[in-house]
Amino acid sequence: MQIKGPTLFINPETAKKNILKMLTKARKHQAHLRPHFKTHQSAEIAEWFKEEGVTKCAVSSVQMAQYFANAGWNDITIAFPFNILEIEAVNKLAEKIDLNLCIESKEVASFLLKNINSKVGVFLKIDAGYHRTGLDASNYDLIEEILKVITNGNKLSFKGFLQHAGHTYQAKSKAEVEEIHQYTSSQMRKLKAHFINEYPDLIISNGDTPTCSICQDFEEVDEIRPGNFVFYDVMQANIGSCSYEDIAVALACPVVAKHPERNEIIIYGGAIHFSKDSIIDATEQKIFGLVASNEKQNKWGTPIDGVYLKKLSQEHGTIHAPQQFIDEVKIGDILYCLPIHSCLTTNLMSAYLTTEGKHISMFRYNAGI
Amino acid sequence: MQIKGPTLFINPETAKKNILKMLTKARKHQAHLRPHFKTHQSAEIAEWFKEEGVTKCAVSSVQMAQYFANAGWNDITIAFPFNILEIEAVNKLAEKIDLNLCIESKEVASFLLKNINSKVGVFLKIDAGYHRTGLDASNYDLIEEILKVITNGNKLSFKGFLQHAGHTYQAKSKAEVEEIHQYTSSQMRKLKAHFINEYPDLIISNGDTPTCSICQDFEEVDEIRPGNFVFYDVMQANIGSCSYEDIAVALACPVVAKHPERNEIIIYGGAIHFSKDSIIDATEQKIFGLVASNEKQNKWGTPIDGVYLKKLSQEHGTIHAPQQFIDEVKIGDILYCLPIHSCLTTNLMSAYLTTEGKHISMFRYNAGI
Repeated sequence: MQIKGPTLFINPETAKKNILKMLTKARKHQAHLRPHFKTHQSAEIAEWFKEEGVTKCAVSSVQMAQYFANAGWNDITIAFPFNILEIEAVNKLAEKIDLNLCIESKEVASFLLKNINSKVGVFLKIDAGYHRTGLDASNYDLIEEILKVITNGNKLSFKGFLQHAGHTYQAKSKAEVEEIHQYTSSQMRKLKAHFINEYPDLIISNGDTPTCSICQDFEEVDEIRPGNFVFYDVMQANIGSCSYEDIAVALACPVVAKHPERNEIIIYGGAIHFSKDSIIDATEQKIFGLVASNEKQNKWGTPIDGVYLKKLSQEHGTIHAPQQFIDEVKIGDILYCLPIHSCLTTNLMSAYLTTEGKHISMFRYNAGI
Repeated sequence: MQIKGPTLFINPETAKKNILKMLTKARKHQAHLRPHFKTHQSAEIAEWFKEEGVTKCAVSSVQMAQYFANAGWNDITIAFPFNILEIEAVNKLAEKIDLNLCIESKEVASFLLKNINSKVGVFLKIDAGYHRTGLDASNYDLIEEILKVITNGNKLSFKGFLQHAGHTYQAKSKAEVEEIHQYTSSQMRKLKAHFINEYPDLIISNGDTPTCSICQDFEEVDEIRPGNFVFYDVMQANIGSCSYEDIAVALACPVVAKHPERNEIIIYGGAIHFSKDSIIDATEQKIFGLVASNEKQNKWGTPIDGVYLKKLSQEHGTIHAPQQFIDEVKIGDILYCLPIHSCLTTNLMSAYLTTEGKHISMFRYNAGI
């Protein structure tokens, strides 16, 4: 089919391979895979997980939970600090499915206890080193206090401790990811050891794509919640979580102008398609995406040496390329660009086209309701 | 009304004031205002321009042109290098409205001449210093060659020279914007002087919010195309294009967690709501947004000293705040955040709520068609 504007292509083969690989790894380590669906946000892509036997998922908002509940998912963790303003929607959802919430303060625990109508699972959000949200992993007294609130009554069922080592996304090497993983895991193991006698069913839930992709030691980890791995992206390849061949999405963009005098090509594809995320590559160059080779039938290959997105404005993408590439490219050609951060690019594009030309729709956040 | 999640508020009073101010300035300088609608992307907000007598607009994509044509706009410039893959849609649109396209190469001019069915206006995109796209403003020979192509036949009507000084967005001061404007304007004036005898109806079309807001010398400028000014944002306030009071949109975000030990508040509002654009403020701090004071009835005031968005992940926003502010804020409170770049935030949110609680819808790009 003829692409006319920026189009997000997905290679189902690659995505399904990524799913199976992560699932196999989880099983090998006796950990349940509860994939985070905020990366693909699509009921149809979620089916690819179901086909492999995945029955639980994590999402990042109440609305996203509603979307996947309507798509038949009945065991969902909202892996985001519970937003007390959404208690009404949470109560409705908790009537229908097994819903898990994350809390990280006594205040929110008390609110939930007072206002929840149906039984919900509760994870305590633990900060094991990332320092974004969560309870200090070593603050046993506060954790104990909050557990007393949660277990007071029969509506809230304590599930365990949930952590996200998001600082692995800034890691420069596999070794650095490994180091972060060792530290956060030891924190979580100590925490589990401290509370396991009192709460024998508690689980440890870990989740971030770099550690789940790179590390091999998951002792005492009962559940993993990676999300990005289904598609991966340039940032993950840069960290070492995947190879370029594992990247399952590419943004197809038309060439609209050429400026050989400064080694630049302008594509129709900008910040409103890619997002503004960038990485600093090995040559200290800030890049917003890589350009992969064109293969047959809307498929792409690996990145072309020296061809990268150097600048993004709202709809314009500026690609740096060597002379030879610029000479070969024609205005009207389609370039397949590998995104830096597939979660944000997918969210912006809000629809997929498979390499077979099939449309795949996704969730849309409904603002102001 | 009760906000439950990230919601983009618009203050119509402020936006209408910004529109009237820019229109008055354009008239004072005998320049036509052709506002760029890529900032608000809304047929309803476009009506606020119409009410003041604006009849022309600029857009950044063919689909956006279709959207505003359907909303009754019949004089539209697509201020983006003509994408030859969209010739079919362009031909359809050109039958209905007065459509202007931008071209910057002989190749595209020839393609257009061969493939266009109805009469369209053509602007030559000129690079007067930004170096993103456009023909070198001093390359008279090449410009002459392309003009020969365009004026060969009666389908393409040459309108004039169009330039965008996008580098003013990186300016650190009004003086720097003024300097850029002086240079690009002199380039455009020379260009006009060179071709005016041969093409007596050609116009100069300039467009970027900083120069149109800050500068006073528009000699020989026949048309201005600013877009961002309708809302402005923190970036524009930082450059000096506006005051904080002129910012017409704010993202209302619920507080979901507090971390006084590190002077941080976590809001439900992240990269998929704000976009990842940032500025370096006067204190060398990278900021992703400012937090304004809460006023009555979904209105906000000016930024609160020392309270800013320091980090964004997909749904989390990390706000840095002084102890006193953190003590006063409660979980479940709504914070009104002023965006760094309102064009990108608006595009992500894709709907508005007015300070009177009225919904305003907007254009949505339809990928893969």
